[in-house]
Amino acid sequence: MLIQPVPVPNGTEKFEEERQRLIKELHDSIPSEYHLPESLAENIPADVTGIPRTCGILTEEELKITEYYDATSLAPAIAEKKFTAVLVAKAFAKRAAIAHQLTCCLTQFFMDEAIERAKYLDDYLEKNGKTIGPLHGVPVSVKEHMMLAGHYSSHGYLSTRAYNDRDSLMIKILRDAGAVFYVKTNQPQGIMHLESDGFMGRVNNPHNIHLSAGGSTGGEAALIAMKGSVLGLGTDIGGSIRGPSAFCGIHGFKPTSYTLTMQDFLPAGFPAELNILCSTGPMTRTLRDMDLYMHIMKSSNQHLTDPRVIPLPWSGLATPLPNKPIKLGIMLHDGDITPQPPILRAMKWAEERLSKSSNFILKPFVPYKTAEAMTLLGEMYWPDSGLNTTSALAATGEPMHPLTKTVLSPVLGADREKTATEVSAQRVARDAFRQAFLASWNEQDVDAVLAPCFVGPASKHDTAYYWNYTALWNFVDYPAAVFPTGLKVEEGEAYEEGYVPLSERCGRVRELWGEGGEGFEGAPVDLQVVGRRYCDSELFGVLGEVQKVLGFA
Amino acid sequence: MLIQPVPVPNGTEKFEEERQRLIKELHDSIPSEYHLPESLAENIPADVTGIPRTCGILTEEELKITEYYDATSLAPAIAEKKFTAVLVAKAFAKRAAIAHQLTCCLTQFFMDEAIERAKYLDDYLEKNGKTIGPLHGVPVSVKEHMMLAGHYSSHGYLSTRAYNDRDSLMIKILRDAGAVFYVKTNQPQGIMHLESDGFMGRVNNPHNIHLSAGGSTGGEAALIAMKGSVLGLGTDIGGSIRGPSAFCGIHGFKPTSYTLTMQDFLPAGFPAELNILCSTGPMTRTLRDMDLYMHIMKSSNQHLTDPRVIPLPWSGLATPLPNKPIKLGIMLHDGDITPQPPILRAMKWAEERLSKSSNFILKPFVPYKTAEAMTLLGEMYWPDSGLNTTSALAATGEPMHPLTKTVLSPVLGADREKTATEVSAQRVARDAFRQAFLASWNEQDVDAVLAPCFVGPASKHDTAYYWNYTALWNFVDYPAAVFPTGLKVEEGEAYEEGYVPLSERCGRVRELWGEGGEGFEGAPVDLQVVGRRYCDSELFGVLGEVQKVLGFA
Repeated sequence: MLIQPVPVPNGTEKFEEERQRLIKELHDSIPSEYHLPESLAENIPADVTGIPRTCGILTEEELKITEYYDATSLAPAIAEKKFTAVLVAKAFAKRAAIAHQLTCCLTQFFMDEAIERAKYLDDYLEKNGKTIGPLHGVPVSVKEHMMLAGHYSSHGYLSTRAYNDRDSLMIKILRDAGAVFYVKTNQPQGIMHLESDGFMGRVNNPHNIHLSAGGSTGGEAALIAMKGSVLGLGTDIGGSIRGPSAFCGIHGFKPTSYTLTMQDFLPAGFPAELNILCSTGPMTRTLRDMDLYMHIMKSSNQHLTDPRVIPLPWSGLATPLPNKPIKLGIMLHDGDITPQPPILRAMKWAEERLSKSSNFILKPFVPYKTAEAMTLLGEMYWPDSGLNTTSALAATGEPMHPLTKTVLSPVLGADREKTATEVSAQRVARDAFRQAFLASWNEQDVDAVLAPCFVGPASKHDTAYYWNYTALWNFVDYPAAVFPTGLKVEEGEAYEEGYVPLSERCGRVRELWGEGGEGFEGAPVDLQVVGRRYCDSELFGVLGEVQKVLGFA
Repeated sequence: MLIQPVPVPNGTEKFEEERQRLIKELHDSIPSEYHLPESLAENIPADVTGIPRTCGILTEEELKITEYYDATSLAPAIAEKKFTAVLVAKAFAKRAAIAHQLTCCLTQFFMDEAIERAKYLDDYLEKNGKTIGPLHGVPVSVKEHMMLAGHYSSHGYLSTRAYNDRDSLMIKILRDAGAVFYVKTNQPQGIMHLESDGFMGRVNNPHNIHLSAGGSTGGEAALIAMKGSVLGLGTDIGGSIRGPSAFCGIHGFKPTSYTLTMQDFLPAGFPAELNILCSTGPMTRTLRDMDLYMHIMKSSNQHLTDPRVIPLPWSGLATPLPNKPIKLGIMLHDGDITPQPPILRAMKWAEERLSKSSNFILKPFVPYKTAEAMTLLGEMYWPDSGLNTTSALAATGEPMHPLTKTVLSPVLGADREKTATEVSAQRVARDAFRQAFLASWNEQDVDAVLAPCFVGPASKHDTAYYWNYTALWNFVDYPAAVFPTGLKVEEGEAYEEGYVPLSERCGRVRELWGEGGEGFEGAPVDLQVVGRRYCDSELFGVLGEVQKVLGFA
């Protein structure tokens, strides 16, 4: 069974043949005892998050392990032999199998390998009386494009799918820390949408399968929201960690570029990165797990192996705060698009709570020229004018997905790539913008900013057109984390009377919402906290204080 | 008077007219009482460093101020009113005027403005009983291309010369710290040679005017060696700080990229920087002055104004060393070109002294694939295929200088620029090289490396063809500092018997040396210490220990 309320478009016959072969291969890799009954598909609820508990496939213990632990509590539970690594690996693999059938969150499933690895870890612990590292036995899910030895990776096009015989550096560090790998997770065509619709299918939002799980790290977000993983790895060049995390109601962190190693994530390179740098970070169920991940990564001396990594130290949640209240900017909108009602409601809810804390001074914040940033950014993503995309699609007869067309729209029709001088001029424009943006931030005098994560909650399929709320922070390369508020879309939430669109785009977002948010039921609401460039640890210091007041996980 | 043993080539009549106008303007800006007698030109010695003392233009006090102080001692002398800022400004301006006539080291001279500024500082100190900052009254010389309010800057072509009405950020920080600006200094055509031959003329080496002062920051190096400045600002994308510093026997430091602000240094951008980043740093007479400069710069919170700056902390010479000997790689050659005899002699001299210190463990070091790095780098400097250079020259009828042709040789003849995809592929190749280089460094297990600065001492005019010893460190973006050994070229130094060239280039360097280094008399010898990327402070920790053993300034 594989639920696909809105299937991805069909390509050529040959392409579909190959695609279906891969989808079948994945299906067949899931043991039949973990297959959900086909009858379920006929009466599928919109919210599928409860099915792992009701389907009868997981034992009570497996439910407990997958539901009540995060990585921070799971690691000591295994180290203290409360659970074996094998039991934990089996629990998460089973739950991931169920999650996949409901949300299409996986691209590869390798339970046997995971159990074998877990067995090795259990033996090691037994024999040596100690763990091999801080993640001993903790299952970690991995995004499709990251090299993992013995498995395949792709750059989001079927034609780029290739076998890997070695780990990327981050995988190696996690493996050395004791992580257990068991799945790779789904991503969009070209890894460049805020919806995960790739050749392996489209990822559904677990809270409402008629909504998108976000992208590009949507497989991770759906899997973690289904509690089929405690810790996943994402990458983010326009919102690809934060978008799906927000859509699915989990935590996600995009660090400043070169904070963590991306070695061998995209070995062929990506021309966008000539000016807009991708960044990698964790996706989790709790804030402390994000901090745990960052601690492990930053204490691994990555800069001694990957020369791109900047060895700024990590203090994270333990970062001492200044002896005065935090100046927190409250960004109700970005000056270009007013967020849809539940987002504004959550912003005001948070603002009200934070205003009662003496640890915060709240200030209204409006980012500098968002619309201009988005125009510049939209072009800078495609210095190759999208020609590499069209050739990657043509190579296998893969159809161009609607959102691929959307992201390529600033360059579609161009018959040549940008020249080196033009790319250099783009960099000058980028740096001038970043400088002006920083001056505006300084003028507004804030330590961090609380902001929406997206123009609304999870979007309907194929409508994630506007990346403003995430991509702006990629354009200026500021660290940003999203967290679940616990709030969800309520029935009949409508725009305020007297709403006036800030722009044509703002009006379109209003239309997408409809009268009272019909069809958005059940979508969770995350918010975002953003810090200054390279002040990632200081951002976590602020996040810890925000958590104390808002009370999220 | 302006000594030019080897003039720069002539351009069109119109170009020469404009160029001569600027040269005359500079000449006229020097008060006639500081003009050297024309008769001196007829009997000019090769070594002109003694002329400021013998020419009778400076007073005894002015000689003392310019010869016996560095920035670190000058600042307190002014603060304690031992000297007025006006006296100091006048002393350095006068000495700079003399230095220029002998070495062609300046492009702009503004003594009146400096004295006015110094007067303001003296009044401030008198009135407030304190200085305005740590460089109160210290004269600082500035490279031509850096924006300084009220003066001109150029990118090394006459067509790019433009008036600036504002300071670049670094100038502003220095001004706020109390610096006094009095000159701008000469640079090569396109700022892309290891010899400073621009439209304002060619810079001579003060120790032997028949040799090059190096480039691209050759004006600074010559001025500082003439003791016409204590502190100059350079930029380095292939050796432009370290080359001239070594040629002229002073100190120079190229930090890791983005350590210090370069805002408004090249406002139009430079396509080379898509893959090879320029870096800015100090040029001084003492190691402690480099440290002073870095402290002032890094404590100025540049990252709050220039978003490109990475806020890694600076501990510099005070960086605590590990409780074990420093593992210092001794790089006698780079595997591609054997250095000329005086350089090898200096390396062995240093090696012998360091080997007697218990603070060091010396290890032979050979860098990974220098020749391959230089091939990749040579192409990466010109993703525009040099087309911007030819059009910048054509705009005013400026002739292409011989060394411009040399640096453009990897791309000369190409009729189109690189595309974005090709530039992206270059980045992939660059990063793969850097990764392999780092692995090789790790395998050789060193904390830092002692290396030559160039294939020889100062080169003869128009022969600085091989940048290996500096540019390799730009390619991998490692911090590197050069320091004077106090050694100089001795008469009749010959290649060892049995010398076998490492490459065709190595053979050409051998030929340039001749039998016994005829014509290289008097050239000083610097050496270089290199650290890991981003470990700039650790490098200074090592430098401090090297200084203790070798006993340089």
